[in-house]
Amino acid sequence: MLRETPLYLRLNPADDVVIACRELEAGTNLLKEGVIVAERIPAGHKVATKAIAKDAPVHRYNQVIGFATRPIAAGAHVHVHNLEVRDFARDYAFGEVYQPTQFANPPATFQGIVRADGRVATRNYIGILSTVNCSATVAKYVAEQFRGDALKEFPNVDGVVPLVHTTGCGMGSTGEGIDILRRTLAGYARHANFAGVLIIGLGCEANQMDALVFTQGLEAGPLLSTMTIQDSGGTAKAVAEGVRRVKEMLPRANQVSRTTVPASHITVGLQCGGSDGYSGITANPALGAAVDLLVRNGGTAILSETPEIYGAEHLLTRRAVSKAVGQKIVDRIHWWEEYTAREKGEMNNNPSPGNKAGGLTTILEKSLGAVAKGGTTGLMDVYEYAKPVTAKGFVFMDTPGYDPVSATGQVAGGANLICFTTGRGSVYGCKPSPSLKLATNTPMFQRMEDDMDINCGEILDGSLSVQEAGARIFALMLETASGKPSKSEMHGFGADEFVPWQLGAVM
Amino acid sequence: MLRETPLYLRLNPADDVVIACRELEAGTNLLKEGVIVAERIPAGHKVATKAIAKDAPVHRYNQVIGFATRPIAAGAHVHVHNLEVRDFARDYAFGEVYQPTQFANPPATFQGIVRADGRVATRNYIGILSTVNCSATVAKYVAEQFRGDALKEFPNVDGVVPLVHTTGCGMGSTGEGIDILRRTLAGYARHANFAGVLIIGLGCEANQMDALVFTQGLEAGPLLSTMTIQDSGGTAKAVAEGVRRVKEMLPRANQVSRTTVPASHITVGLQCGGSDGYSGITANPALGAAVDLLVRNGGTAILSETPEIYGAEHLLTRRAVSKAVGQKIVDRIHWWEEYTAREKGEMNNNPSPGNKAGGLTTILEKSLGAVAKGGTTGLMDVYEYAKPVTAKGFVFMDTPGYDPVSATGQVAGGANLICFTTGRGSVYGCKPSPSLKLATNTPMFQRMEDDMDINCGEILDGSLSVQEAGARIFALMLETASGKPSKSEMHGFGADEFVPWQLGAVM
Ligand SMILES: [Ca+2]
Ligand SMILES: [Ca+2]
Ligand SMILES: [Ca+2]
Ligand SMILES: [Ca+2]
Ligand SMILES: [Ca+2]
Repeated sequence: MLRETPLYLRLNPADDVVIACRELEAGTNLLKEGVIVAERIPAGHKVATKAIAKDAPVHRYNQVIGFATRPIAAGAHVHVHNLEVRDFARDYAFGEVYQPTQFANPPATFQGIVRADGRVATRNYIGILSTVNCSATVAKYVAEQFRGDALKEFPNVDGVVPLVHTTGCGMGSTGEGIDILRRTLAGYARHANFAGVLIIGLGCEANQMDALVFTQGLEAGPLLSTMTIQDSGGTAKAVAEGVRRVKEMLPRANQVSRTTVPASHITVGLQCGGSDGYSGITANPALGAAVDLLVRNGGTAILSETPEIYGAEHLLTRRAVSKAVGQKIVDRIHWWEEYTAREKGEMNNNPSPGNKAGGLTTILEKSLGAVAKGGTTGLMDVYEYAKPVTAKGFVFMDTPGYDPVSATGQVAGGANLICFTTGRGSVYGCKPSPSLKLATNTPMFQRMEDDMDINCGEILDGSLSVQEAGARIFALMLETASGKPSKSEMHGFGADEFVPWQLGAVM
Repeated sequence: MLRETPLYLRLNPADDVVIACRELEAGTNLLKEGVIVAERIPAGHKVATKAIAKDAPVHRYNQVIGFATRPIAAGAHVHVHNLEVRDFARDYAFGEVYQPTQFANPPATFQGIVRADGRVATRNYIGILSTVNCSATVAKYVAEQFRGDALKEFPNVDGVVPLVHTTGCGMGSTGEGIDILRRTLAGYARHANFAGVLIIGLGCEANQMDALVFTQGLEAGPLLSTMTIQDSGGTAKAVAEGVRRVKEMLPRANQVSRTTVPASHITVGLQCGGSDGYSGITANPALGAAVDLLVRNGGTAILSETPEIYGAEHLLTRRAVSKAVGQKIVDRIHWWEEYTAREKGEMNNNPSPGNKAGGLTTILEKSLGAVAKGGTTGLMDVYEYAKPVTAKGFVFMDTPGYDPVSATGQVAGGANLICFTTGRGSVYGCKPSPSLKLATNTPMFQRMEDDMDINCGEILDGSLSVQEAGARIFALMLETASGKPSKSEMHGFGADEFVPWQLGAVM
């Protein structure tokens, strides 16, 4: 079904501008807006839909992207000649636009797996974790014994998944690096989507098993088992022992069923990777609309990728529920400034000349492309990487922008679903939490249809509004949380995408 | 066959001391040394075997470990009360003890695979590399299609190996971090042990395929193929395309045979991991003796693990063939000081109180435990991580001490064999280069016999001298290079132990 690209996109009813979907000539009638375009507007650029007074804030996706440097008439081009960031960027205005959430009643529901302690899972795996790279192969060999028909007596177990990594030794035995690794491993060990977890170590690594268990407050038991290769007596004996322990877990792991639970048990990690010029106007705002629906239904969404909001943290501090929550973002931004300085890198998220040619005017607007995934509701809390997410609603977790590292932190924090927008076409998948991939444009969706779950390019094609796309994503979130496999799950992705954030010297 | 632990060990005929294997009472007769022990010597500590003048250097494993602070009589305990480092540690004495190698004539030989360009392989794999974590799973899926019976028509192909990693994006597109990653990937892409290599990218990663190929001077062709998932149109099509390309390589890859070639075509990477109190007196000196044999037969051995020789780089600078080569080590040491300072870590390889109680007196002696793997011949060149090793003889490559990262750099540099000493019991294995594991003690060897290739603990048991153990290791090097599988190869290790050194901020 071919449709013509619409003339423009309205991202939010409260916006002062709409986005030209193709070059607009002076005199073009933006019918639904009741506005006549006053001058030539390049594709991707902004048109004012009402008169904006000098010094007034300009909103896109219901967030401030800058201030008018002179009066702007309805129909005028809004760009660097009449829009700038100003003091906004020096004023965190903590909580200034925070609004309590209007909750849906009754809330949406899904079919979840309720654990003995009341936590709700969206999948039911057994996980094999490694303390160190030195035990990675043994962990994989244990899991390999449960491929094929090995689980046919345990139809409620989704699989036995090895999640291994490259660090765990050659690192300080105290400090930020090992703290983050331990938090990440513990977050997975505790994840509701694992019915049982076996952690395998070598024995002499810096990331000692006892210290991992003790510092993270893990409790070994029938469904959380630990062992080392050196204690077992080498590879063959360790694999045999690991297989034995997993076999012991299987009957209990299989004793689950899905029941109707409220959407408040969904925690979704928001990701974008391989973004393109459409990310900020299709998939990211659509995902944001879905997040607003999820939050109104009691659920939780985690925005991350700190380097991609750098310089526009003000977009989030204003939405904070309290000054203390807003300040946590500012603190993490300062941490990043120090980190990149010592790594001889640089934090710089300013629009490039290419960004500006494409219609992005200010750093706020550029970052809004990433922030839009988080919708518009209040920011309820801020977490360091891989820390347990306990608040409900929209929250932020500090992570790098690099997809597998960012998502690993979110899942460690409890995300039981990932929503991942992509323009260039990522094939990312996750375990133990399913990951939905949202295409920003139709050509890529069609080219990579076996990897994409939803085509947000339809927004640009004119067959779907941002709000409609958001509703479709929210519906698929509920279905996926209820057990419907995502495209990446059908392919089997997820074992090699577990990448804990590596910080500190490799010694 | 039970033997009694010998009284003491002589590590090198030129040494001024021997090592007590158990506590020695005053009056004990060290028969072969013609020395009577003058006072109680704890196990692991040193006894002088001749009179040492005040200020004279004291040698262990034919290397200076310090200077006598007073006259030391034959039979006396040598430790902190009469031995110290002094000016030695401030004088690199470049080349002072360098001696040209006395080559064996004729040299030892092995059965190697001679490539069209004259390089010699010890194994014959096809490799599947990924530019970025985002293509890791597709790389693995391609390789999985060649498990089981899939290669039965190609009996000379040892396997199709996926070597994937966790980085390649969320990093600067220039700088030290990506330089090292590209060098590492290119070193593997060029490795003689790969008959053919397929490199798979996602498409939008920082580590762009074109830049990888161009900056590293790689030449695509029938046996070096590149592709991206985005160009292929997603996971399923990329896997199919990758399988097709590997199938095209197989007939040519199978056209190999082994012929007799000189040992000069062996390049061995030296590793130790999970070291213990015996490493420095059994497996490491034994490996050093084997390296001396390899070097005299024209081969190359790469010592690495810079943090473990820190503070005792003087042991190497004195052996350097030239001041320029010695200076390269000093430069890398300064790089490490800067690196660990910015990572809030610390370079400190001084003997701890526990080390001293165990008999290690000076930082030179402690580091000698690691350096001993490198034997006693001249240091012919020094390389940065993953750079191609072109010199013959004993060389140094700057790497972290962390085993998988260190060995990955050595293999990227061309190592076609790894020799790995271990006391606690590592199960490390490598692809595409076989890895031999040398146990430092008999109890661990017996406990983990399916992972250990040689028991250097026999040196302590009295059934083997250091030189005899070295000859045994050298013989097994030749056999393994000729195709005999190592223990870790029988287990199938190596795909998850490919860990390029990650430097720089994760963004
Ligand atoms: Ca991104
Ligand atoms: Ca990202
Ligand atoms: Ca991995
Ligand atoms: Ca070591
Ligand atoms: Ca090591």
